[in-house]
Amino acid sequence: MAIWYDEVFEDKIRYGLKLKRTLFVGQSPFQKVAVVETEALGKALLIDDLWMAAEGEEKVYHEMIVHPALTTAPSIARVLVIGGGDGGTVREVLSYPEVEAVDMVEIDGMVVDACKAHLPEIGTAWDDPRLNLVIGDGIAWVKDASHGLYDVILVDGSDPVGPAVGLFNRDFYEACAARLKPEGVLVTQAESPKLFFDVHVDLVQVLRQVFGHADPFYQTMMIYAGGLWGWVYASRQPRRFEIIPERLAHAEARCAIYNGDIHRGSFAVPTYIRRALAAKERP
Amino acid sequence: MAIWYDEVFEDKIRYGLKLKRTLFVGQSPFQKVAVVETEALGKALLIDDLWMAAEGEEKVYHEMIVHPALTTAPSIARVLVIGGGDGGTVREVLSYPEVEAVDMVEIDGMVVDACKAHLPEIGTAWDDPRLNLVIGDGIAWVKDASHGLYDVILVDGSDPVGPAVGLFNRDFYEACAARLKPEGVLVTQAESPKLFFDVHVDLVQVLRQVFGHADPFYQTMMIYAGGLWGWVYASRQPRRFEIIPERLAHAEARCAIYNGDIHRGSFAVPTYIRRALAAKERP
Repeated sequence: MAIWYDEVFEDKIRYGLKLKRTLFVGQSPFQKVAVVETEALGKALLIDDLWMAAEGEEKVYHEMIVHPALTTAPSIARVLVIGGGDGGTVREVLSYPEVEAVDMVEIDGMVVDACKAHLPEIGTAWDDPRLNLVIGDGIAWVKDASHGLYDVILVDGSDPVGPAVGLFNRDFYEACAARLKPEGVLVTQAESPKLFFDVHVDLVQVLRQVFGHADPFYQTMMIYAGGLWGWVYASRQPRRFEIIPERLAHAEARCAIYNGDIHRGSFAVPTYIRRALAAKERP
Repeated sequence: MAIWYDEVFEDKIRYGLKLKRTLFVGQSPFQKVAVVETEALGKALLIDDLWMAAEGEEKVYHEMIVHPALTTAPSIARVLVIGGGDGGTVREVLSYPEVEAVDMVEIDGMVVDACKAHLPEIGTAWDDPRLNLVIGDGIAWVKDASHGLYDVILVDGSDPVGPAVGLFNRDFYEACAARLKPEGVLVTQAESPKLFFDVHVDLVQVLRQVFGHADPFYQTMMIYAGGLWGWVYASRQPRRFEIIPERLAHAEARCAIYNGDIHRGSFAVPTYIRRALAAKERP
């Protein structure tokens, strides 16, 4: 008998992968965590029964949350990652020799432990001496001025339910802005504009108000039922920074998806989103 | 009891929509044709049990197969559409006042009849006097020199199985090239590079060999299990044509997805595809 697991969106849409076996299922204080092996995409992480990452698809997500910021921020010496428990985001960040220190603050130790044990193919940089892994609350972390200032902040949380709900409000982003150097760059995942249109548009708007400058960017994630996925690039500068050629050469040599054309092309905003953002900005 | 319909890819991946009701199911000499109503995306067309188009998602596909060609081709007076039985492609083509005549050659009259009866929301231009709808074989049509030369040819076929298999070979595209004016533009759908990687890469390569110039372009289609969808823009010119501002203004005013940024950004090629194409071009 074939065993399928389907992520179901609002009892209307489902995206299913056929399973070979289940490697881990646990219930943390925050959420349900599972690692399974799929026929199509290798091993995959599920949180609260939603597809989060799969070996055969994770590169799109992790390359896009990291490289647009890391190829453009004036300095990338000190980086903060909030969330990102599978380790894919810090893997891409730590690929840059100019990165000197990464604080990764993940609220759920079970995600990290399950991924270290069962998905070491994604998190290949856990042993990098520049990585400071903290199991704790990212919101509290950015509100604590003793943690100093960062060149880049990457917010790699899950959907705005459960422990990640606080990653989608103005209070959190104001605290992030306070932890960012004046020429720093923040990138956050920003959900599917197809399935979470209001969340997506509101988040862009909040980031524009808090930072002064924020642009959404997009790529295709086949395991997320909406297909199109969004992130937002924010900074206090009047526009986003230019790509630094040496950094781009580094990223293009290692990436499966990301390159300079993809970087620029990802910032194209579909008309229906462009119209919604313009409507929000009218006085 | 909830009734779901899942498109299943290679018994490994499935994309399902919950159904409200089934409006039409028929078996033509070529394929199985169905129109259903879904909870999430309105009414949808299935061919051989694969999602083809849905009210809530069809604009991505139809805007992208039409407007990159129609905003750039030096002339758009005479257009040929092969396939496109739901009517969405000719709807977008006929939106341009400069279009004087469209031949649409669809092999399966059952698709057209089912969509006219049950999906009139997609095909809104069936009664346009500039449209010549032919139920017949598109391959035979382009091999018949009596049909003259076209400014634009759009190949809107289904997957390379069943009646559409002949739309994926050199012989067919050489016949198309013979029906295209010297400054004409051909765009063809080119499958999911995630799920049909070899078909996609081979098609780009064949079009480069036949036309001299061909570029793939991409957008996200949530109802196609691979998420990312490809098309190819081909012409006999050394590079693709510039966007004509008046045509772009027309397209931007009517489109839900397409705009000038999306046009340019869609031609960004993910690194894994770029590498495969470069490998093919080595002597």
